Amino acid sequence: MFTKILIANRGEIAVRIIRACNEMGIETVAIYAKGDEDALHVQLADQAICVGPAKATESYLNMTAILSAAISTGAQAIHPGFGFLSENAEFVGRCEECGIVFIGPKSETIEKMGDKAQARDTAMRAKVPVVPGSDGILTDLKEAKELAKRIQYPVLIKAVSGGGGKGMRIVEREIDLEAMIKAAQMEAQAAFGDETVYMEKFIVEPKHIEFQILADHHGHVVHLGERDCSVQRRNQKMIEEAPSVFLDDKLRARMGNDAVKLAKNVKYRNAGTIEFLVDKENNYYFIEMNTRIQVEHPVTEMITGIDLVKEQIRIAAGMELPFTQKNIQIRGHAIECRINAEDPEHDFRPSPGKISTLVLPGGNGIRIDSAVYQGYTVPPTYDSMIAKLIVYGQDREEALAKMRRALEEFIIFDIKNNIDFQYSIINHPSFILGNFDTSFIAKQMLAKTDRKEK
Amino acid sequence: MFTKILIANRGEIAVRIIRACNEMGIETVAIYAKGDEDALHVQLADQAICVGPAKATESYLNMTAILSAAISTGAQAIHPGFGFLSENAEFVGRCEECGIVFIGPKSETIEKMGDKAQARDTAMRAKVPVVPGSDGILTDLKEAKELAKRIQYPVLIKAVSGGGGKGMRIVEREIDLEAMIKAAQMEAQAAFGDETVYMEKFIVEPKHIEFQILADHHGHVVHLGERDCSVQRRNQKMIEEAPSVFLDDKLRARMGNDAVKLAKNVKYRNAGTIEFLVDKENNYYFIEMNTRIQVEHPVTEMITGIDLVKEQIRIAAGMELPFTQKNIQIRGHAIECRINAEDPEHDFRPSPGKISTLVLPGGNGIRIDSAVYQGYTVPPTYDSMIAKLIVYGQDREEALAKMRRALEEFIIFDIKNNIDFQYSIINHPSFILGNFDTSFIAKQMLAKTDRKEK
Repeated sequence: MFTKILIANRGEIAVRIIRACNEMGIETVAIYAKGDEDALHVQLADQAICVGPAKATESYLNMTAILSAAISTGAQAIHPGFGFLSENAEFVGRCEECGIVFIGPKSETIEKMGDKAQARDTAMRAKVPVVPGSDGILTDLKEAKELAKRIQYPVLIKAVSGGGGKGMRIVEREIDLEAMIKAAQMEAQAAFGDETVYMEKFIVEPKHIEFQILADHHGHVVHLGERDCSVQRRNQKMIEEAPSVFLDDKLRARMGNDAVKLAKNVKYRNAGTIEFLVDKENNYYFIEMNTRIQVEHPVTEMITGIDLVKEQIRIAAGMELPFTQKNIQIRGHAIECRINAEDPEHDFRPSPGKISTLVLPGGNGIRIDSAVYQGYTVPPTYDSMIAKLIVYGQDREEALAKMRRALEEFIIFDIKNNIDFQYSIINHPSFILGNFDTSFIAKQMLAKTDRKEK
Repeated sequence: MFTKILIANRGEIAVRIIRACNEMGIETVAIYAKGDEDALHVQLADQAICVGPAKATESYLNMTAILSAAISTGAQAIHPGFGFLSENAEFVGRCEECGIVFIGPKSETIEKMGDKAQARDTAMRAKVPVVPGSDGILTDLKEAKELAKRIQYPVLIKAVSGGGGKGMRIVEREIDLEAMIKAAQMEAQAAFGDETVYMEKFIVEPKHIEFQILADHHGHVVHLGERDCSVQRRNQKMIEEAPSVFLDDKLRARMGNDAVKLAKNVKYRNAGTIEFLVDKENNYYFIEMNTRIQVEHPVTEMITGIDLVKEQIRIAAGMELPFTQKNIQIRGHAIECRINAEDPEHDFRPSPGKISTLVLPGGNGIRIDSAVYQGYTVPPTYDSMIAKLIVYGQDREEALAKMRRALEEFIIFDIKNNIDFQYSIINHPSFILGNFDTSFIAKQMLAKTDRKEK
């Protein structure tokens, strides 16, 4: 086992990793940017090394500085957390060259699964369902019609060079297909100088369901059930829960098996997440793999009793998984709310500043993964997530009740935060009843505000 | 189900009960003494009623004021917590007279189990082992010798009118018995004007093991396993854990069955604790029953997943237990440290005052049941326990590691507290190895200090 690990991150995930190391008897080296001297991860680590100025590209993304911090402190391994360098194949390659263990998959795996087209191909070869679509660009209207009929309307016409929604059309009926393809091509030509388009099935109001997997260096792969991350604002997850209200045991087993199959197919190592969209008919489609620990990993920990960060470290040290698929038992229900220093009344713009008062909720079934304390000043430089509030109950009803009362107890002054907004989601009838999908926040939470603004 | 409950307590247990009610959708009425306006239980309850001046006898023990607070606010039930009126049969009787549900057993049960002699008789009749001894006073040396032989040395000679260790002798061998009885009698005569003595087996360095039971109004009784509370200072528990390292499944089943048998025998209702001493040969002896929730109840909650306070409320509302003995599964290991505002360097004298800085530990497996916040002033009037730190791990080793790192993270300024002292217990080789009993703190933790003072 390692005796010293460098944590190449900041914020709550750095604190989370330091705590795991501490409990395992492993010394920790924190890195920090100038201005982060008072950050909790710097306080809690055994050592802390300044790796550059506040700007992340010069500090938390500064590969050379981070690697020399690891070498000079004698750290045998680097835990990247999430974000920053966690899915950077080059960094992983450089760790490998320096003889430092990167706590995650190999650089070639990150390269392979990081490219969405390659990941899609891999999934198709592994016979894991992906969003149906054309194998390349659309050239012939008749073929396009046949394809659309086969994958069923609505379909999405997307510019190959597209982005930001430009050169994109949703087509509901065959009668509109020709005109829409032309419109998309013209828009694409104007915007990108490239009129080529392709077709994909448009998944209407899908659920975002992801499977946590763990894979050791000895060929063992297990999944730890799913997380439902459908509550999103502009593709940013806000609330995650496990298990999902949408999945029955049969669907869970099928999706879990596919997740394991895909991980085995790429000889995956360490913790990873296989993300799926699930449509209204319970068809599911692989969308991408995250080759790192996720923000929302605690909900899986709560219902399985497995510490994912410790398992990551054990796996990286070459140990075998201490359980098989059939040992993994799901018990109870967990929900996580991301607590952000942001202003929901002004389009969720970041709201850094000094925390003059902090009262954390506590008691039975409450877990707080936080990077802040009373008197701490949240810098404007980084991600606005300052804490995660995770609750665990015997069932979803109890977990919801716990989240409600924990959010009521949670006090952060004087910086703006999303506690009240999260509270309004938790108390929304559709959320309580389980009637929600990725369109929930835009359609049910922000629709009124939008109207007001108009 | 009740719609409003009055909590006749203060501190962390009042907060604990308010949280449970809140999660169950039950309104709460806090009571408070003058000076406790800023207390967390007052802040968190839906209503708060002042019941008298700071002195507990005039407020938290003021039955009339508490009952009128319940009646005037329309509370249908009173949760007494622990301490204060929780085992006061008169108060329970008065609740019954007022038509207010007391969340606990009936007054006659409290009377019966509150008297140690009666409780001992009840246990003997239920064939639950008690500390062996004479059935009354010693009158004849020959009989005394026979008894001592039967219950085995060492034995304890105790004055019937005794107290404070006077008129008490430990006898190791038969050859000393006559002289020791005489010495005890003379001392008893001198101290109490009553020379009568009786004999009890002296349990050498016992473990304190207690069983949590739950009993509904329909005759169902279950036990939720044991708690090991052997780490005590002058009979005050400091650290509790579950399960106990001393018990194997067989002994656990025998003691658990006896606990259930005793509870059934007295037609017990609600949550209760059956306390045993366990000697070095794994003989166990009933010592007393606590007819209320215990300070250390969270460790049982962590390993069983059962919320004891919620079950208390459901039972009091007449509901049946939602599980049977065989549904109750023990998973993992939990440890609790009581965090007290006291000064270990000055004989643990209370250390009230303002908390200028409070940093709570957090993360995976950490539970904090606290009644304080940064800026709060701990009053000098009540119990010095201000928080409970509870950790949960997959096994004892992980739980110990979590407790170690949580105590390291825990910061309370500027009042004296026992965090460092608890830390030294958690890191003591004997505690880590499970070599401890009720003499542990006196013999292994404070022995050095005592020598220093001499």
